[in-house]
Amino acid sequence: MNIISGGVTAAKGFTASGIHCGIRKNRSKKDLALIYSEKPASSAAVYTTNLVKGAPLTVTKANLTDGIAQAVICNSGNANTCNADGVEIAETMCRLTADALGIRASDVVVASTGVIGQPLCLDPIRAALPALASSLSVEGGRDAAEAILTTDTAVKEIAVEFLLGGKVCRLGGIAKGSGMIHPNMATMLVFLTTDAAVAPAMLQKALSSDVAETFNMVSVDGDTSTNDMVSILANGMAGNPVIDAEGEDFSTFMKALNTVTVWLCRKIAGDGEGATKLLECHVTGGKDATAAKTAAKSVICSSLLKAAMFGADANWGRVLCALGYSGADLDVNRVGVAFRSVKGSIEVCRNGAGVPFSEEKAKEILSEKEITVEVSLGDGEAEATAWGCDLTYDYVKINGDYRT
Amino acid sequence: MNIISGGVTAAKGFTASGIHCGIRKNRSKKDLALIYSEKPASSAAVYTTNLVKGAPLTVTKANLTDGIAQAVICNSGNANTCNADGVEIAETMCRLTADALGIRASDVVVASTGVIGQPLCLDPIRAALPALASSLSVEGGRDAAEAILTTDTAVKEIAVEFLLGGKVCRLGGIAKGSGMIHPNMATMLVFLTTDAAVAPAMLQKALSSDVAETFNMVSVDGDTSTNDMVSILANGMAGNPVIDAEGEDFSTFMKALNTVTVWLCRKIAGDGEGATKLLECHVTGGKDATAAKTAAKSVICSSLLKAAMFGADANWGRVLCALGYSGADLDVNRVGVAFRSVKGSIEVCRNGAGVPFSEEKAKEILSEKEITVEVSLGDGEAEATAWGCDLTYDYVKINGDYRT
Repeated sequence: MNIISGGVTAAKGFTASGIHCGIRKNRSKKDLALIYSEKPASSAAVYTTNLVKGAPLTVTKANLTDGIAQAVICNSGNANTCNADGVEIAETMCRLTADALGIRASDVVVASTGVIGQPLCLDPIRAALPALASSLSVEGGRDAAEAILTTDTAVKEIAVEFLLGGKVCRLGGIAKGSGMIHPNMATMLVFLTTDAAVAPAMLQKALSSDVAETFNMVSVDGDTSTNDMVSILANGMAGNPVIDAEGEDFSTFMKALNTVTVWLCRKIAGDGEGATKLLECHVTGGKDATAAKTAAKSVICSSLLKAAMFGADANWGRVLCALGYSGADLDVNRVGVAFRSVKGSIEVCRNGAGVPFSEEKAKEILSEKEITVEVSLGDGEAEATAWGCDLTYDYVKINGDYRT
Repeated sequence: MNIISGGVTAAKGFTASGIHCGIRKNRSKKDLALIYSEKPASSAAVYTTNLVKGAPLTVTKANLTDGIAQAVICNSGNANTCNADGVEIAETMCRLTADALGIRASDVVVASTGVIGQPLCLDPIRAALPALASSLSVEGGRDAAEAILTTDTAVKEIAVEFLLGGKVCRLGGIAKGSGMIHPNMATMLVFLTTDAAVAPAMLQKALSSDVAETFNMVSVDGDTSTNDMVSILANGMAGNPVIDAEGEDFSTFMKALNTVTVWLCRKIAGDGEGATKLLECHVTGGKDATAAKTAAKSVICSSLLKAAMFGADANWGRVLCALGYSGADLDVNRVGVAFRSVKGSIEVCRNGAGVPFSEEKAKEILSEKEITVEVSLGDGEAEATAWGCDLTYDYVKINGDYRT
């Protein structure tokens, strides 16, 4: 498993492009991305659990019923959600994309991110699609990665290379996390592509299983967006024997997928709104997977702990507090807590009670950009990891500012 | 039902006192409160649901097994939680209090609020108790209300007068909300007293039922403290016929209790850490009580909405988003949203989609200190109210500062 350069166009047969079409007022921000596969690809996706679902998700879900897709169209600047004609607009986006590419409208994945409840005007998209389609290229992967961003401070793209049945396969992805210019853009979008041959059902299985351990373990502010979506296209151009059942190849593919998704999770969490630090909570010794995951996620979601981490404060009482209200099946009197970063590790709590520690050393450890909260539950063998970020003045600033 | 002056000493037979004993370094902050009933009183309490429970809660729970209490001792500055000898210390606090008052140690309610995981030194409490006991008075109710505060910006006390069986009864209370000097003090403590005669079982029934609609519907930051407690003492000195079953008197008592608790909820929420505004979410048309409550609480807990309210931004998409992920049984396409304050009311969403509104008028309404988010679900008759506050720079500042 090697990490290679590139992102969504690293795999064979994929090209992409990204431009400013005019949905966003700032002309220096790209706002329309296109990803294209030379051949129709197996396709799978997972969607937000929010009852309020963006219209693009409804349309994508319908389009992926047959497990096949060939292109992804995504705009930023407007979520196309809670609008009366949202579904019609999302369908039209698919049709315009299909027309420009000469493919079927039902083979298009459509996604939008931006303000909720404001009509999305199709004119700039209609006008831009021919140019967007004609500028598709491998190098355009970077443009696409930029065009899906909102106030993310960094482009998020990664790709890996691996072998399946002796064939070199690649899997890459791009993501947008939770950063905002206009509020309500706190949507996580992830587009993955691979040239591995994977049957649609197995692709969905791999994605659903992976997302439960990766993107569903990321929290920036506890608000589940209406437009979250992770999708993957597998066009089979690597020439490996089609993966249509579990086995060694499926495991290899899952590992490649997980390498990409964990990397993107860390990028999304560390680039959360206003964040100055990536927080990782690693839970060991859980009674079962549910207990470990519930515990890890509760720690990452605690506003009090997030603010303490911003202040580099080794306030382990907040970790215990978050474990206590998490709902996880655990014994408080067995809990141990340590803080870790590149500067070292420091134990602060054992068996549910404090242990003496150097505040100075703790401060040094917590002043780093990537902090791991190590929690041992002492109840069993299950492990889980969750990712988040600190809570900062800038989070309030970004989200308190007026939309207009 | 008349609101009268005073708080925890408004009811007959109750006196209180509060002083600085030395647990907190700042000598101008009182840190030890005592409440005393001339006669042993029926008593009831509800406790945090956090698995990590402060030692004082364990001791109070044991002491209230017989439904009788005569005094409350409460310190601020140290939570006496996650300490190896916490229970022993809390028990000693009860014994020292009992000795000073000449009552039974098992008739003492003990509470602590402050840093988790730091040993609580008994010396200042031991030294102060004789003076605390000798200074008990009706006027001392205010001192007690001050001594339980942390960085609350306002004393929270209220009392009401009502009739039971022709007898004038009073019920009053004091509370501390979530304000911090040292982090981890985000504990809600409420002490209620009444001279109404209520059997312990009915008192517990009244309190448990009321708390589900009041204090459990308050959220400042989603973190459930390890030391939350609401307790009530009913000494019967009003001379009313003892309430030992449901009926008209019980209903009157419930109404008095609810008047006091709702008032305290609003004070606690509006004085949340760093808050500049009280947020109230009033949900109507819920399918059932659970749906209405779940929906109301989810709206109040949304960091994104809280930040928008700080910025006086009529960002109703965040209300829909919070309803959508709340888990409440509701139909998004029937949801209506309006914002209301003393400056008027403005409808922003109908049937799950936006309606045109004046941003200027919305800004004017949302610039007030008390904002109500009116949500209509259109599914039935159930209603619920939840209280919270905005998310501000000061919340981050208070909670990001180093403990020492």
